[in-house]
Amino acid sequence: MSRLQAALPAWQWLRNYDRDAASADLVAAVIVAIMLIPQSLAYAMLAGLPPQLGLYASILPLVVYALFGTSTTLSVGPVAVTSLLTAAALSKIAASGSADYLSGAIMLALLSGVMLLVAGLLKLGFLANFLSHAVVSAFISGSAILIALSQLRHLLGIETEGETVLSMVRSTLGELAHWQGQTLFVAALVLLILVFMKRYGKACFRRLGVSEKQAGLLNRTAPVLAVIASMLMVYFLRWDLAGVEIVGEIPRGLPAPRWPSLSLELMQQLLVPAGLISMIGYVESISVGRTLGAKRRQKVSGNQELIGLGAANLASGFSGAFPVTGGFSRSVVNFDAGAVTQAASIYTAILIALVAMLLTPALYFLPKATLAATIIVAVLSLIDWSIFGKTWRFSKSDWLAVVITFVLTLLYGVEVGVGSGVLISLALHLYRTSQPHIAEVGNVPGTEHFRNVQRFKVETVPEVLSLRLDESLFFANANCLEELVYDKVFKDDRIAHVVLMFNAINEVDYSALEVLEELNSRLYDQGILLHISEIKGPVYDRLSKASFLDRLSGTVYLTQHQAISDLCDRFAYQSKHPEDRNKRGRW
Amino acid sequence: MSRLQAALPAWQWLRNYDRDAASADLVAAVIVAIMLIPQSLAYAMLAGLPPQLGLYASILPLVVYALFGTSTTLSVGPVAVTSLLTAAALSKIAASGSADYLSGAIMLALLSGVMLLVAGLLKLGFLANFLSHAVVSAFISGSAILIALSQLRHLLGIETEGETVLSMVRSTLGELAHWQGQTLFVAALVLLILVFMKRYGKACFRRLGVSEKQAGLLNRTAPVLAVIASMLMVYFLRWDLAGVEIVGEIPRGLPAPRWPSLSLELMQQLLVPAGLISMIGYVESISVGRTLGAKRRQKVSGNQELIGLGAANLASGFSGAFPVTGGFSRSVVNFDAGAVTQAASIYTAILIALVAMLLTPALYFLPKATLAATIIVAVLSLIDWSIFGKTWRFSKSDWLAVVITFVLTLLYGVEVGVGSGVLISLALHLYRTSQPHIAEVGNVPGTEHFRNVQRFKVETVPEVLSLRLDESLFFANANCLEELVYDKVFKDDRIAHVVLMFNAINEVDYSALEVLEELNSRLYDQGILLHISEIKGPVYDRLSKASFLDRLSGTVYLTQHQAISDLCDRFAYQSKHPEDRNKRGRW
Repeated sequence: MSRLQAALPAWQWLRNYDRDAASADLVAAVIVAIMLIPQSLAYAMLAGLPPQLGLYASILPLVVYALFGTSTTLSVGPVAVTSLLTAAALSKIAASGSADYLSGAIMLALLSGVMLLVAGLLKLGFLANFLSHAVVSAFISGSAILIALSQLRHLLGIETEGETVLSMVRSTLGELAHWQGQTLFVAALVLLILVFMKRYGKACFRRLGVSEKQAGLLNRTAPVLAVIASMLMVYFLRWDLAGVEIVGEIPRGLPAPRWPSLSLELMQQLLVPAGLISMIGYVESISVGRTLGAKRRQKVSGNQELIGLGAANLASGFSGAFPVTGGFSRSVVNFDAGAVTQAASIYTAILIALVAMLLTPALYFLPKATLAATIIVAVLSLIDWSIFGKTWRFSKSDWLAVVITFVLTLLYGVEVGVGSGVLISLALHLYRTSQPHIAEVGNVPGTEHFRNVQRFKVETVPEVLSLRLDESLFFANANCLEELVYDKVFKDDRIAHVVLMFNAINEVDYSALEVLEELNSRLYDQGILLHISEIKGPVYDRLSKASFLDRLSGTVYLTQHQAISDLCDRFAYQSKHPEDRNKRGRW
Repeated sequence: MSRLQAALPAWQWLRNYDRDAASADLVAAVIVAIMLIPQSLAYAMLAGLPPQLGLYASILPLVVYALFGTSTTLSVGPVAVTSLLTAAALSKIAASGSADYLSGAIMLALLSGVMLLVAGLLKLGFLANFLSHAVVSAFISGSAILIALSQLRHLLGIETEGETVLSMVRSTLGELAHWQGQTLFVAALVLLILVFMKRYGKACFRRLGVSEKQAGLLNRTAPVLAVIASMLMVYFLRWDLAGVEIVGEIPRGLPAPRWPSLSLELMQQLLVPAGLISMIGYVESISVGRTLGAKRRQKVSGNQELIGLGAANLASGFSGAFPVTGGFSRSVVNFDAGAVTQAASIYTAILIALVAMLLTPALYFLPKATLAATIIVAVLSLIDWSIFGKTWRFSKSDWLAVVITFVLTLLYGVEVGVGSGVLISLALHLYRTSQPHIAEVGNVPGTEHFRNVQRFKVETVPEVLSLRLDESLFFANANCLEELVYDKVFKDDRIAHVVLMFNAINEVDYSALEVLEELNSRLYDQGILLHISEIKGPVYDRLSKASFLDRLSGTVYLTQHQAISDLCDRFAYQSKHPEDRNKRGRW
């Protein structure tokens, strides 16, 4: 049974599901579904795909995630950033709306589904750790600006193109003269509703006697209000004839599950974009899942999440739709609305399925400007300007990574942006971990403590070089130790002993062992003995098994204090005039 | 002047160069040149290039490295592994001996020259640290086997092909019937001379009254003896007419420095191979340089070495030759022969230039079998079988990396081998550094020390979770901390305080700060306070500047002992029955 539970996390709640949970989940499902209808249509438009695909991406994937995911409240479906990445990837291979474009979207969903699934099964969730939060945040902010700019044309009723800030601004300015009055009016109305509701909606509902929490939830239905208001306006004024672009006919019905056609060439073209979409989607989703999970003391397992999201993307592909992931705002609403299990997502999926089967004709007059305005308001809240100031104050290298990612995203588009973000993160990681902190230490007078000579007033012995290694030794940093020791030893002829403090070393790999062996014999050639102090048990065992400790020219001391005392005793014995040493004012 | 010295390390010895140094360098230069003549011809053959290119690669590059390199005794020139990599890269784009093949070799030298130079100027030397020693060693062993196998055909006088073990063995077995008697005789003679000299040569010279050291050096001239013996045999017996392949006519003269023709397409094809050649060449060269440097307390600077080797490769390209790097055996001979400055390399270059101008007709009858036998004996000493046993005993993950690299090199050739070696090294690095060691600690009874609960008999308080982080916190491992804390806290309802021991933390990056902020507020939501103990000064300053410490729900304690004492006092105050806690036998 525990095996079943591991493979199917849903088993945990399915076993004990009761009426209380069901009614809580149902309420949440209704609110999320109301929020999801305009969102799914809008994100399909953002991805350059027909609106019904947004609905399709919000049915099966939700059910599949509910069965395999570990977060109780994550709401899976199309989200802004992955939709933009989808559009960026597909615009290179086909014209929006063409058959190739549609099969490209399916292929992206399938590929990222397989990648996430495989990563989950191979327990590669840790790889996502290499995308630094700060870089992701900068990328999201940059993408949000790109998304908002790309939607401007729907607000103005003009035709523009471009995937970077410069090209979009240029194209928009060029076409600005052709702006369409009624479209702009609709857009302005929707923006007004959305902004007003954001500012004052909650207070209004409160005045109507609704509780604080419910007011917050009701307020989330603002986009639906805007959708209804603008639809009615276009319908009664027949502004669709005046040039306001509307969604038009959406085929009624459910996605027919089918085996998508697989083209090897298409697969190769979309491999890298699918990888980027998977990575960004996973990183965003897991952070939402963990944030919400922590509030209820619920564990969200990284590797099982990869499996859940992978399965959801496969489901989206088989539904003929595009990549999905856990959405931030929707999940928060689901959580706040009181969802207790993933059953809420299943109910949401059923509601969306009903909409797809019955209500699509009602969406005929929905203006695209409304969807665009909804997108703009949603993504502008993703922009985090504070990240620049915060990282600047905190560390200049983090700041630089953030600025580069942000600027490249704006100037060269999302793919270059996220690609460079990954590379910068990795480069920072490699750089940092290959520069181990190694401090020369001395004795704090009157104690048995040893501290960094650069930070504390400590006593040192000219014949002894004591180095504290503040990190585990392995191939990427062992050479630095070697170089540093030689550097110090070659500069100061008095050094006859080198003591390495191993107190912070948890692991030594084979390459580091080789460096230690070499250091030991090279120093010995120079008449210098190598000692080790404060070594941890497992490291001692390992070095001893490799018989390095037999070959060590010096001694293994329990503490650094013992090392220095013992070495000083040796000098006292060797030297006939120990008082000379005291005169030099050093220990 | 110090600026000149930084840019031109040769300035240091040029200033003080005296007669003693000059005579020592001259002796070493003669010995190295004698060794280098057959080697340079052999490695050109191994790279699939005409023999004179081996000589050309041993003139200008040596002079250029002498000016820009920092090792006093490194001997630059063609080496076995990079020659094999050159052949592997070029065999894909053109037939051996064709004009395209020749320009490919030049392009490889130029590209890796530029790459090394740029890496040096941008101070990217640390990148080479990410190639684990163990993996490089496995790759070299695998390459040595490939090289030896590829030379078998010259020993047998047959025609074979293939770049992997399987294909070469299959091809050799297929052609075995066509073996050529006289060729095999020459090869056997040469192998006999080389193996005999290796075993007994030193002892023989000693008997002739030569000193131990000089006997060792004289012994290094064995390949030249073999060359002369086999040349004379072929010349007098006219075995060249009987089918023994000879080097034949080598154009007399020096390389004409010229601007090579640059083709963008060729450049793209050779970019990755050039990168691999640069990396392997640099890693090998720097390790030789450092080993020899340490013996004389001389510093070898990684970034300046990149510049030196880069310039040498550019020089090789402009000479119309192929990639070069620092060779192990040659450098050791140079060192043992008493070279004190890089002037020795300049003298060697002059000697090789004289050979190229005057002596090439004398090499007409040199059998290819002789060169092949020289190569085989040289590379077999590169194979290090012990690496498998050593890494197996030391750590299974190192062993796995070594085996994979070795097997892939044999089965799929050098390029796949070194490529996978780099990837495995990186993956190991990423995996290790993203799995920080975090220990739950408890108090060692009767002391103020805190140790890992899993390793020591220590006392813990059920209300307090104390975690010691054994590594700096940054984006790649901060999530692990978060997950671990939630894991422990969600499992045990009694926990009301979490104390993080920061004693081993040297740095906290922005992403880690975000994780700490989140941990702090999430735990607070659960009624759990977060405390920090034993934080280092710079980390305290940084966290305090980001005002994280103001928001910290708990206290910053100087020591872990203080933290536990203080928290226990709080419990004692809160609880009306402190004796109950004592009954539970825990502190």
